[in-house]
Amino acid sequence: MEIKVKTTHNHQMIDITHDVENAVHESGITDGIVIIFNPHTTGAVTINEGADPAVISDILKSLSELIPGHAAYNHLEGNSDAHIKSALMGSDRVVIIRKGKLLLGTWQKIFFCEFDGPRDRKIQLKIIAG
Amino acid sequence: MEIKVKTTHNHQMIDITHDVENAVHESGITDGIVIIFNPHTTGAVTINEGADPAVISDILKSLSELIPGHAAYNHLEGNSDAHIKSALMGSDRVVIIRKGKLLLGTWQKIFFCEFDGPRDRKIQLKIIAG
Amino acid sequence: MEIKVKTTHNHQMIDITHDVENAVHESGITDGIVIIFNPHTTGAVTINEGADPAVISDILKSLSELIPGHAAYNHLEGNSDAHIKSALMGSDRVVIIRKGKLLLGTWQKIFFCEFDGPRDRKIQLKIIAG
Repeated sequence: MEIKVKTTHNHQMIDITHDVENAVHESGITDGIVIIFNPHTTGAVTINEGADPAVISDILKSLSELIPGHAAYNHLEGNSDAHIKSALMGSDRVVIIRKGKLLLGTWQKIFFCEFDGPRDRKIQLKIIAG
Repeated sequence: MEIKVKTTHNHQMIDITHDVENAVHESGITDGIVIIFNPHTTGAVTINEGADPAVISDILKSLSELIPGHAAYNHLEGNSDAHIKSALMGSDRVVIIRKGKLLLGTWQKIFFCEFDGPRDRKIQLKIIAG
Repeated sequence: MEIKVKTTHNHQMIDITHDVENAVHESGITDGIVIIFNPHTTGAVTINEGADPAVISDILKSLSELIPGHAAYNHLEGNSDAHIKSALMGSDRVVIIRKGKLLLGTWQKIFFCEFDGPRDRKIQLKIIAG
């Protein structure tokens, strides 16, 4: 199972919660876990507040203050900051499935993080029953 | 399965290793994995040294130096730093279960991270046999 | 299953992808997930670009700029920075196994991160079929 995402900005967080929910629903698995895996070295997957878009803009702004886009990097493709942000945020998350639903908190949404867009991206999913 | 935690400070790391161990013991599952999932957007789950409490105080202090509590944030609830720290530390961890025990390192403990307390919190657990 | 790593520097990222691939191959499991768990409180596991070694040197350099080796830390063993970096990078990663192969992106490799070496380290693996 795979989610396709087309990012439109250089830095962006895109809510993929509904896509993950749909994949879980289609699998027919009602109890277990779902692994959300980002295969891109300049992207990441994270879980945070989806209600106020200011939260994700603060996360992206803070990351760029910590990891500047231009600095004395060794990697010459101009996207070292994106690789470092990817490492800090993490490639994968695991969410519990209970009674057919994602066991997320009230305010939690699952986001694909783009740090070197715009690009066509895909996110891999795997559901394990249990 | 759910662990309830009552935090007493604004920033705090609470050792929940025994609660996770108890849940694994009660499940009767001796080989597999346990997912420790934090459903709060201003909390996190991490694994680090539990022997010297100075380690966790250094982690919290360093995070607050990197992500100040008060800055030019867009989110107006006054807890943007907590959301950003939650994103950096991560919502979930996976620990291996072998012969009925958590396969943690000698010095490792599992911590719930509070970044916007004091609050009543809960952590979700899921055990997968395998 | 266990991967042994002998680090040779104080800070180092070591590509363990082939070891994880070998363990998956030997397990005979063709579909599921593999958990890569670091049991050391001054190490981590991360997934990032393996093609250009400048990427991992930029990650290590950037981490050390954010978390200096010497600062007003409470922990007196002189390796507080290593514990903090371990917390930021994370103790574990989960990779999907499909048709007997790790479902990594084109440029992704799995790295053990050493932040307090040189040391003899081990990484625990667990494969769950599904």
